[in-house]
Parts: sequence; structure tokens; C-alpha cells
Amino acid sequence: MIGATRGPGFRRVVALSGGVGGAKLVDGLAAVLPAEALTVVVNTGDDFVHWGLRICPDLDTVMYTLAGLAHPVQGWGLADESFAAFAMVERLGGPAWFRLGDHDLGVHLVRTQRLAAGAALSAVTAELCTSLGIGPRILPMCELPRATMLDTADGTLDFQEWLVRRRGAPAVNRVWSTGPSAACPAVLDAIADSDLIVIGPSNPYVSIDPILNLDGVRAALAAKPVVAVSPIVGGKAVKGPLAGMIEQLAGRAASPAAIAAHYRGLLAGLVIERGDEAPAGVASLPASTVMTTRDDRARLAADVLAFAEVVP
Amino acid sequence: MIGATRGPGFRRVVALSGGVGGAKLVDGLAAVLPAEALTVVVNTGDDFVHWGLRICPDLDTVMYTLAGLAHPVQGWGLADESFAAFAMVERLGGPAWFRLGDHDLGVHLVRTQRLAAGAALSAVTAELCTSLGIGPRILPMCELPRATMLDTADGTLDFQEWLVRRRGAPAVNRVWSTGPSAACPAVLDAIADSDLIVIGPSNPYVSIDPILNLDGVRAALAAKPVVAVSPIVGGKAVKGPLAGMIEQLAGRAASPAAIAAHYRGLLAGLVIERGDEAPAGVASLPASTVMTTRDDRARLAADVLAFAEVVP
Repeated sequence: MIGATRGPGFRRVVALSGGVGGAKLVDGLAAVLPAEALTVVVNTGDDFVHWGLRICPDLDTVMYTLAGLAHPVQGWGLADESFAAFAMVERLGGPAWFRLGDHDLGVHLVRTQRLAAGAALSAVTAELCTSLGIGPRILPMCELPRATMLDTADGTLDFQEWLVRRRGAPAVNRVWSTGPSAACPAVLDAIADSDLIVIGPSNPYVSIDPILNLDGVRAALAAKPVVAVSPIVGGKAVKGPLAGMIEQLAGRAASPAAIAAHYRGLLAGLVIERGDEAPAGVASLPASTVMTTRDDRARLAADVLAFAEVVP
Repeated sequence: MIGATRGPGFRRVVALSGGVGGAKLVDGLAAVLPAEALTVVVNTGDDFVHWGLRICPDLDTVMYTLAGLAHPVQGWGLADESFAAFAMVERLGGPAWFRLGDHDLGVHLVRTQRLAAGAALSAVTAELCTSLGIGPRILPMCELPRATMLDTADGTLDFQEWLVRRRGAPAVNRVWSTGPSAACPAVLDAIADSDLIVIGPSNPYVSIDPILNLDGVRAALAAKPVVAVSPIVGGKAVKGPLAGMIEQLAGRAASPAAIAAHYRGLLAGLVIERGDEAPAGVASLPASTVMTTRDDRARLAADVLAFAEVVP
């Protein structure tokens, strides 16, 4: 079945996403679905306050990617970015372990001011998306801060402390969340109204679980077809610390089977990298899951949607 | 009498300053006095909160000028500045009537964070000056916000609203201040310990009066020799809206006599532009008061100090 404009026939797709990998798949979905058919639910467990500003790394990566502004290689921030404010903060002895670009700073300044004025994060995100000309709807997973915390060999760290300041080095024993567990109401509505859920190739522990663990999300997903894209390719994470986390948290090697086990009971199907071993117990589709070009993103998105039409 | 290192013999000079003109004279004083001999008291009545950040335009202009970082022409901000964050804020529909450069933003971010952490403005200013390698001591006139307000033909406006947003156009009927009237304690101490007070060629109404009107400042100054540099040259302000304000507020033409009348009872002497008519009732020194080059600043500063040694 083919949709009214192009691509497969799902009319209301909800994608769950963290940063880089998830954002690229979302960009592909945006290329093959009409804008009104796609809602993106983004992890905000990595959010933090830095330089007095509310930073939402995954929301920003998804926004910048869909706006065509994302840095093509580094996985965070903007293309053609400058770091003049950062240089001055560093010169003045301010906190310099997290690099913030100048354009990026403009986003954080506007967001922080709107939040301080009482606007909800979902409303601020919608405003930013409108200004940046983004078609699909982007929702933060929740309105209020809910931080992902990691119990590590070096004590309990928040996500940015662990990933950026400590470079993801301390072994992780447990991942948990602190803060109100209410999902953004629009997230539950979007899931209820959807006919397909796509879980992007993001880190299950720190990008997707924080969404799944919000009140009512798993129950809402139970009634829907859910397909995921494996973030593990050839036994390694395409980007980031996931492979080590699987070993530390699941006690097994990183593989599509480990991803399938992590999401057991939730998935109708798993898209895996061509050549990787198919997991038992769930339908899987071999595809090219490493998205180097924008065409790669659209091709993978089309594969995911086509696969979702044929899984049970 | 010549001091231990160079220049005239005043050992503890306090300069009162607003932005551009005052900052240039302060730079000249810093060139001819040992760093420990100079304390600069800076107007903070123009301070405001913008993009959620505490902006101190006059403090910053004095800091940037003494650090050799000030923009050589425009009278605010930094040389070699970029405006990437501003461009993004503008794109996102944020308030764009006041341009903030990227490096400048770094200063505001650090200051705002330190203030939010409970540091006093004088302590934060000292930290910034140390980081920027500034020798003379720079003091804000007061620790807490005290805003200069203008009753105008278009209603009551704060200073930046009037000067920047409304381009200084609405005629001014009255200038007043709101907020606690306590001077920074270090300001009163510095005046008490000084042997000369220099009032820079700043706007008397909106740059100097806010300092003079703080509790105890006029009383402390009464015991000290005070010399000022006229900000009026050839009947016009060197920069800014002063000439019109003199007409509106004092009902007379802009001239050194109008400046002398404004400061009557306070001044031992007034340095005026060569060729301008000397005011009656106060000692005056004709000099080159327009500071185009850094040499001009040092020369005028040396003239001011030499003049101060011979006025009654």
C-alpha cells in the first residue's frame, strides 16, 4: 500500500529518538513521509543546565538535523559554527569542559528565557521548530527536568558528567532517572493516535529507556506495532559508548540479539545491519543501517517502513 | 612634584566614569599612573537584564578599554567581534533590538552565573579584571541593581530602552534612579583614601549623577579636590545625546559653562576644549579633550593631573 503522497502507507508514525543515530533516521523518515505523518519523541534525560542555560542535547540534535543545520560529522552542534563566546568563558575561568558554539548558544538563550517566562518545554520546542522551518512535530519526552543518572565505578554521575566530562570511561553499573516521571501529555496522545512506532538506532539505556520508563508509555506502546533499528553493527556501536554498556549492564557481547533481548516483549521487528546475525524470537530485516549520506537515511527509513508493513 | 615611577604626584586617584569618553580618559590615566594609584568607579545605572543575562555596559566598556580589547570606533563592545549567537536569536524571534557580540556574551554569561551563585558585583568585576589582565581597580558604583530611569515625552523609559531601542529620540524631562541607593562600600573607602577625584568626560545626567547621588558620595567628595573634563566640545557632545539633554533639562545651550553649572560646588577645576569659552566661577584649563588615539588619552590624562596640582 502506498500513501497519498509517497512512501508506504503509515499515516501516523511516532519515532522515539536520542541524539545522532536516532536523529539521522528521523531525517530519513521526514524525507519519505509527509510532515504531518511524523511525530518525533525525543529523550530529554541528557538535558542539563550549563552556563546558567537549559541545554537539551538530543532535542537540539534532532532539530538541527531536520533543519539541515547539523554538523555533518561530529554528531553534535551545528555546521559552520564558531566558538567565540566559549573562548571568552574559558579565558575568564568559567566552566569549559562542555563546548557550546555561538549559534547553538543563541538557541539555549532563547529556550532558557522562554522557560523562565513560564512556557512549557513542548511549547518552546514547537516555537523553535517553526522558526527553523521544521515540518514534523518534535516533542520532548517530558515537560519537566528528568535527569538520567549513572551509577559507575567512580560513583553516581549525571549523563553529561559521565559522557563528556569523564569521556564515558567509568564502567556503568546502573542507569536510572530522577525527577517527575510524567510523560509530556502530547507524547501519550501521539502514541495513542499512531499506527506505527519506530525506535531509532539510539542507545537503549540512556536514550530510549528514559522515554519508555515514563508513566503510561509502555502501556500505550503495547497496543501498537513497534519496529526498532539496531544501533549495534558488527558488534560495535556506530557511535558512542553503547557496546561497553551492553557488556557492563547486560553481561553479554554487543549484538542485534542483545538489542532484541533488551526490547523483548516490545518489538514486532528489528532492522539489523546486513551480515549481522539475526536474533531469535523476533522478525528481523537485514538492511544498510549505517547512514553516511542523506540518501542513506531516506533509504533506511523506507526499508523500515516497508518492513513494518509485513511484520506480524 | 613627580611620582615614584612617572607622571604627577597623586598617589591615590579615583576616577568616576560612564562608558566611552570616561573609559578613554581612564585608559589615559592608567597609562600615566601606576596601576595601584588608580581606582575607577563606574556607573551601573545603565545595567539591564537582556536574554536573561546581566549586562553592565559601562563596566564592560571600561574593562574592555583597559584590557585593550574595546572596539576602536563604535563606542561599545569588542574589537574583532562576531555576532553568531545574535543571528540565531534573531532567527528564532528573540529580542534583537540590542546587539550582543559573541565574546561579549561570554562575559555576560560568566558574570550572570557568578551573581546567581551569590557573588557580589564588585567581586565578580574584580575576578573578570584579573582574568583580563587589568591593573587598576575597577569598582561598580553599587552592588545591587539601581536603574537610571528617564521621564520622557513618550513616558517613563529605562536607559537602554531610551538610548538604544528609541535611539535617544524622546525628549527628556527628568532623570532619576530606582533601586537601593547604597554605594558599594569599597567606593566610599576609595574616595576617603584618595587625594584626587577625576570626573571623566561622561554624560553628567546619566553617567555621573547616578554615582554622585548614592548615599554618602557627595559628602565624601566634599573633602577632596575634584577636577572634571568637559564632555562638551564646540557646543556639542563628543558622542551621545548629551547636548540635547542639557537643552531639555537645564534649559540652556550645551557649553563648558553648562557643565560647570551642573557640577557647581563640587569642582576645583574643569578641563575644557581648547578654543571653547572658559566658564566663570571655576578654574579651567584649555586642552585637547577629544581622544582619537591612545596617545591622546595619555596626554589628556597628564594634562588633567598637572592641572589638578595647581588648582586651588
